[in-house]
Amino acid sequence: MARKKGVVLLSGGIDSSTLLYYLRSQEHSLLPITFKYGQRHEKEVESARAIAISLNLSIKVVDISGLGLFGGSSLTDDIPIPEGHYTDESMKLTIVPNRNMVFLSLATAYAVSMGCDYVAYAAHAGDHFIYPDCRPEFIDSIAYSIKLATGNVGLVTPFSHLSKAGIVRLGLGLKVPYLMTWSCYKGDEVACGRCGTCVERLEAFSLNNEKDPIDYMAGTYLDR
Amino acid sequence: MARKKGVVLLSGGIDSSTLLYYLRSQEHSLLPITFKYGQRHEKEVESARAIAISLNLSIKVVDISGLGLFGGSSLTDDIPIPEGHYTDESMKLTIVPNRNMVFLSLATAYAVSMGCDYVAYAAHAGDHFIYPDCRPEFIDSIAYSIKLATGNVGLVTPFSHLSKAGIVRLGLGLKVPYLMTWSCYKGDEVACGRCGTCVERLEAFSLNNEKDPIDYMAGTYLDR
Repeated sequence: MARKKGVVLLSGGIDSSTLLYYLRSQEHSLLPITFKYGQRHEKEVESARAIAISLNLSIKVVDISGLGLFGGSSLTDDIPIPEGHYTDESMKLTIVPNRNMVFLSLATAYAVSMGCDYVAYAAHAGDHFIYPDCRPEFIDSIAYSIKLATGNVGLVTPFSHLSKAGIVRLGLGLKVPYLMTWSCYKGDEVACGRCGTCVERLEAFSLNNEKDPIDYMAGTYLDR
Repeated sequence: MARKKGVVLLSGGIDSSTLLYYLRSQEHSLLPITFKYGQRHEKEVESARAIAISLNLSIKVVDISGLGLFGGSSLTDDIPIPEGHYTDESMKLTIVPNRNMVFLSLATAYAVSMGCDYVAYAAHAGDHFIYPDCRPEFIDSIAYSIKLATGNVGLVTPFSHLSKAGIVRLGLGLKVPYLMTWSCYKGDEVACGRCGTCVERLEAFSLNNEKDPIDYMAGTYLDR
């Protein structure tokens, strides 16, 4: 069988970094892609680049921040970032409208241009259903749309039945350099340990009886 | 009932220009959007802008040409544009990968940001099925994906059962200023009258026993 070739959505966080390592372990030929959409900081893009380089892959960085189409989210605007476990209210503040559909559409265009078999995306069972474009029915529908639009590009989501702790378990076995990853919504020198994504990341390592290798500010969720 | 508000994909050609006038005749509040994706010329964008201004609307121009995701099409690259009626071979040369999905995703993000009820797109029965992202099953699938991703934004395609001649018939009644529109794939001073889109446009007016108001070079398809 010919070697599979795919575009991988890489955010620089733990889910997508593990996905890249997982697909590499299958000996696929990989084209990681990441997006600048007006995040408050460059740390995500820097982490995505470092993870790609760690596998000797070059990364496609697509800057859509200047298009002026995303607004009203605390990930890109000047709204305080909520702390603690996610709540419906705090998560609504971090929604960038239609972000996953935009990313998947652009990644698909890139996949067609580069003659790839698939686009891979680290959708997982821990995704929050307040984000409508993370729900399984959306993923199924957009996968069908992509297939219809391209004829031969598939959307693959190998982690759709894994929790974040399950992803970390897999990644620890694959020796993913989690020290290079970045999840915190804030762009400080070290991760805050308090925002929704830090809390979930700390929990995922804790459930594996492992310590998250990145540095955190004093007083994280786990210290409480 | 509240006045409907929608984002309208406006290419500057006859289908989308008629769609804008049609929706305006329904007294909707409209936000036209157009894309620069690396076309050979600026005439499409200029025409889209002129059509929007003719209805006293401002247009959102989204430049995705610098993203480097589209390649291998004669609409954007240095490949000769085929003449005469479309053939499967000649149309394949004018495919920009996944273009409609990219446009619809970005238009949807804009619609969410602006609190719109819908995204309107001039898909029609004359669309060529060699373009997979023009086929009715793709439009149905992407409409469902958009609904799932946004919860409340609909994709509307009022012309899905009209031929291009039917659209022109409607537009003539709505007094669409077709003189301002541009369809030709080439960017010369006047339309070539020979490329696939010129041929179809000339036919659509001819079937209505009307003369297309734009200028053509001597020796169009109809002169033969």
